[in-house]
Amino acid sequence: MLTFDLNATCGDARAGVIHTDHGDIQTPIFMPVGTAGTVKAVHQHELREEIGAQIILGNTYHLYLRPGCDILRQARGLHKFNAWERPILTDSGGFQVFSLAENRKIKEEGCTFRSHIDGSKHLFTPENVMEIQRIIGADIMMAFDECAPGDSDHRYAQKSMELTHRWLDRCIKRFNETEPLYGHHQALFPIVQGCQYEDLRKISAEYIASKEPEGCAIGGLAVGEPTEVMYQMIEVVNAILPKDRPRYLMGVGTPQNLLEAIERGVDMFDCVMPTRNGRNGLLFTAEGTINIKNKKWETCFEPIYKDYTLAYLHHLIRAEEILGLQICSIINLRFYLWLVGEARRHIIAGDYAAWKASILPNLGRRL
Amino acid sequence: MLTFDLNATCGDARAGVIHTDHGDIQTPIFMPVGTAGTVKAVHQHELREEIGAQIILGNTYHLYLRPGCDILRQARGLHKFNAWERPILTDSGGFQVFSLAENRKIKEEGCTFRSHIDGSKHLFTPENVMEIQRIIGADIMMAFDECAPGDSDHRYAQKSMELTHRWLDRCIKRFNETEPLYGHHQALFPIVQGCQYEDLRKISAEYIASKEPEGCAIGGLAVGEPTEVMYQMIEVVNAILPKDRPRYLMGVGTPQNLLEAIERGVDMFDCVMPTRNGRNGLLFTAEGTINIKNKKWETCFEPIYKDYTLAYLHHLIRAEEILGLQICSIINLRFYLWLVGEARRHIIAGDYAAWKASILPNLGRRL
Repeated sequence: MLTFDLNATCGDARAGVIHTDHGDIQTPIFMPVGTAGTVKAVHQHELREEIGAQIILGNTYHLYLRPGCDILRQARGLHKFNAWERPILTDSGGFQVFSLAENRKIKEEGCTFRSHIDGSKHLFTPENVMEIQRIIGADIMMAFDECAPGDSDHRYAQKSMELTHRWLDRCIKRFNETEPLYGHHQALFPIVQGCQYEDLRKISAEYIASKEPEGCAIGGLAVGEPTEVMYQMIEVVNAILPKDRPRYLMGVGTPQNLLEAIERGVDMFDCVMPTRNGRNGLLFTAEGTINIKNKKWETCFEPIYKDYTLAYLHHLIRAEEILGLQICSIINLRFYLWLVGEARRHIIAGDYAAWKASILPNLGRRL
Repeated sequence: MLTFDLNATCGDARAGVIHTDHGDIQTPIFMPVGTAGTVKAVHQHELREEIGAQIILGNTYHLYLRPGCDILRQARGLHKFNAWERPILTDSGGFQVFSLAENRKIKEEGCTFRSHIDGSKHLFTPENVMEIQRIIGADIMMAFDECAPGDSDHRYAQKSMELTHRWLDRCIKRFNETEPLYGHHQALFPIVQGCQYEDLRKISAEYIASKEPEGCAIGGLAVGEPTEVMYQMIEVVNAILPKDRPRYLMGVGTPQNLLEAIERGVDMFDCVMPTRNGRNGLLFTAEGTINIKNKKWETCFEPIYKDYTLAYLHHLIRAEEILGLQICSIINLRFYLWLVGEARRHIIAGDYAAWKASILPNLGRRL
């Protein structure tokens, strides 16, 4: 069983521990995205020792296409394949099918699509997505959902949410019919949808809560809607989701987003922002953001990570050197993990809101 | 002063120690190439701790163009700029001007060229190349030479060699007129040229030896000539170069090339092969070479570096993941440093030729 201990609350903000067979996760937590079985440009030992990552993500869509299920099964799962022995969460592949794949067609049965790699034709269904995640061996599996476009009208949003709910039932059925393949427990998290419609979000949260899941996810946010709408949806949903289970806000977001969502009772986050922005030379720090390509850093010989200076990092990114991508990725992930660690500390200390108010102006500053 | 202690010889093979102000270098040694102030895809601490690099290269051409002399001077040299406190050798920029730059024109004065980055026009002369290397602060500076094409006829080869000798005199003059900028000693190594003509190589080696340099380099080899011709040229040259100074064979080569050249009295090597081939998924190991892209490695779950398996590395390189480039680069550099370390050990043990004969068949094997 995946279990969740709530250590402290501060308003709606929560500090807890998720227990998995691959170890504990102290929440709130940020999960670095390891799309194809690797957090881009970062070694596994750097994730553990430099960044303090407690859990990483894998993308079912990518892993299914490459290396593929045969190889992952022969490797006895992703943990063994990529030598990451801490917890892993996999998404359901739904989001990537909608954002990356070609010729996708959504039907009641599931979703057909063509691979963005070689154009080959595939079908994801709630059932086979459960089976794929069994093969990957993630500690936390996600239900197969449709992530409707952010600007969907109410009619489409409702239709899509209802499909997601029917798919959830099929996911749960297949999940219960199958066993973990490698001897460790796997949890299934359903996903709340409903776009930016409060009534739909409530219906969806109630539906998800009624399944008594080991944890709950909130999907379909940060897809273009105003930030305040996202926060409002989180509040609506978290008022309904069970308090004794971890809550995962999918694909979010900026450091500010994390702190606001933590204040509203979210426990888990993932986002490509620290790594993707890092590879573009955008650094997150406790004092603000740095565009390392700016000429102002050219002669700033202050160290930013190990003995590497801002001037050196400016040079590396300007020269498109791989080491620049490596260093920026580590810096940003370290910062994200530091931020959620600080959030946890202040929830436990009981001064989360004051701390958040004090750090927010810094986070938005451009250095 | 850069000094050189010869610890042992085994036939013509030599085991020694080069003493520099940034530390000792045990020879024979391979020097990873850090073109633009970074060994591509490898952290400095990995060079030190995982790879055992004792000295790295910087390319004057690249560093001059980016970050440029102003910034390097403000950083107080490349060691401080890239946080590498062990020895650094810089080439003279000549080779890159001839291989990378556009619109190059060789004149008695020097060489004009256009930057491969932005097309800007520049002039390298023996004098300013000394000044640039003073600013970079390399422990070992190289004389400015013309690296003539491998298929040059005797007439051109002689003309080019004589120009290189005149340039050497100008290099030495400017070198002697200038001081190190950062308080550590810098040595100047002249370069033997002469293409594949024994008579020219002899003349050039004698000219270089007459300058009583702190170390000598052999340039213009491994540029397309048969391997046996290269070995023959090394023998001709090393019979003349001073025995009490280190000898550096520039830009060479395969593991087999290294062992043959060591047997013929070479002490120092550099080559992009381990890093460049590594980024293409070609691995060097003591049992032979591996093309990690081959399907045969797809399900080979043997670890190759840390806990990373061949199957995982196959996946990373196939998926064009940055981590794959990082791991392959480390594996190959580790192997090159291991190989020269073993060579040193066997020179000291007195069984170099036998060891070389035993390992050579492995090195040529494709796994």
